[in-house]
Amino acid sequence: MQPLPFTDPVELNDQQILELRDFLKRLAYSAGEVIRPLFRSTLLTENKSDSKYDPVTQADRESEASIRRLVRQHYPSHGIYGEEYGFDVGSSGLTWVIDPIDGTRAFVSGMWHWGTLIALFNGQRAVLGCMYQPVLDELFIGDTRTSHLIRDNQSTRLNSRQVSEISQATLCCTHPDMFTSEAGLQAFRSLAASSRMSRYGGDCYHYALLAMGLVDICVENSLKPYDIQGLIPLVEGAGGILTTWSGKNAAMGGQVLASANADLHERALAILRPAALD
Amino acid sequence: MQPLPFTDPVELNDQQILELRDFLKRLAYSAGEVIRPLFRSTLLTENKSDSKYDPVTQADRESEASIRRLVRQHYPSHGIYGEEYGFDVGSSGLTWVIDPIDGTRAFVSGMWHWGTLIALFNGQRAVLGCMYQPVLDELFIGDTRTSHLIRDNQSTRLNSRQVSEISQATLCCTHPDMFTSEAGLQAFRSLAASSRMSRYGGDCYHYALLAMGLVDICVENSLKPYDIQGLIPLVEGAGGILTTWSGKNAAMGGQVLASANADLHERALAILRPAALD
Repeated sequence: MQPLPFTDPVELNDQQILELRDFLKRLAYSAGEVIRPLFRSTLLTENKSDSKYDPVTQADRESEASIRRLVRQHYPSHGIYGEEYGFDVGSSGLTWVIDPIDGTRAFVSGMWHWGTLIALFNGQRAVLGCMYQPVLDELFIGDTRTSHLIRDNQSTRLNSRQVSEISQATLCCTHPDMFTSEAGLQAFRSLAASSRMSRYGGDCYHYALLAMGLVDICVENSLKPYDIQGLIPLVEGAGGILTTWSGKNAAMGGQVLASANADLHERALAILRPAALD
Repeated sequence: MQPLPFTDPVELNDQQILELRDFLKRLAYSAGEVIRPLFRSTLLTENKSDSKYDPVTQADRESEASIRRLVRQHYPSHGIYGEEYGFDVGSSGLTWVIDPIDGTRAFVSGMWHWGTLIALFNGQRAVLGCMYQPVLDELFIGDTRTSHLIRDNQSTRLNSRQVSEISQATLCCTHPDMFTSEAGLQAFRSLAASSRMSRYGGDCYHYALLAMGLVDICVENSLKPYDIQGLIPLVEGAGGILTTWSGKNAAMGGQVLASANADLHERALAILRPAALD
């Protein structure tokens, strides 16, 4: 897949952000319509070993296709960078960055901690982002300045926690085996051992919990741009910080750290930075 | 806490099982009424570091108290063995075994994979059991012969999967650090490495997924009777097997293995048995 490049940033005014935020919600709900009926759709299937029926692939492809159709229809000059169908470079300098189902292993196992990630990338950073869990109808959406959970037509402002000591923090990670370098694994283990508790198995959902003030640190490895961009404006808008392990722009993925606040982030970076690859 | 003893089994006829199954549902829903409003109740709390507000402790205690009241009222001769309030030995030989919130770390972190576990122990084995997730209103209930998911007043019969090779199986475990002996950890790692994929962070919810035919192996360590009894009739009723790592009765907890079917169970036991403590 052609890499997503950094380019001169497109600056958007408040009115444009509001309009594009409404469109982002529409994209998320459109993907959700495709995904929702496929969750646990094998539950009533007689032959569960039928290898031809693959609901997660179907949900991934059809939901991304639905998002792409809407973008082409309403913003034909915008680029699209998606996990399933690659990179359509646009002419506007704005790109929609899509992971139709982040957490496919959780999805296919009938678990709840997965979601649709969509971001709007302005050439330098994600300026809008969301994570939508369509079966729970939970839309977590942020614009880097504020973040909200929208559910049952109610919008709740999100604020991350003011926990500043790692010993008081709840740390999350998708899977302990995701760290590919020995130094990365040791740095992760050191950070996890210093935390109040560690939890696995949440994929993108962990970052939504951080925005809600329910967990404090998310640490991951080997992410793609579409695995993280939707979450950056969400975490930032709730008061958190999301960077690479060296404290740089995480828009291209790689080793990623999200923290509930700046003090906690500095303390976690101090442990991870020696193992940073960027 | 006074240990739960094995005693002569109380045999129940079909009519008694049906009546007690209805009562079990009532117990679960009663606990759910207490727990539901406390889930994520810190979300809108201004001072999230207020150490005096502990919704999980409140949810744990008040839901178990609610179950205990109902048992005393309707079956005063039955014993009660619960995580929060200990063991009241009854005179009937039947004991309700309760974990009001299994997965408190998940609960307090706003995650979805936790539940209320309730079993009816006949002196030798759990003859009825359930896991209830009250916020999702998912009641997973089994009587060792059949298992159902009850939601929105609809009851769906559950069947575990016929995957017989470990290499095709999805393996679940609450946390990779739960294995206390070196031999246990190595046996777990060997089994996990042989599986198709491993998932963490599910607590009791993993066993419900196994009963639904969505995951295939659950392996855990250091469980108490109330951590596992509610799940045994559920797994068995869906066609699965749940024993200790040496293939014995798992009613008292310890090292536990649940598998989607007997062939898979034998293959997993072959890997775990050398590290069995019982």
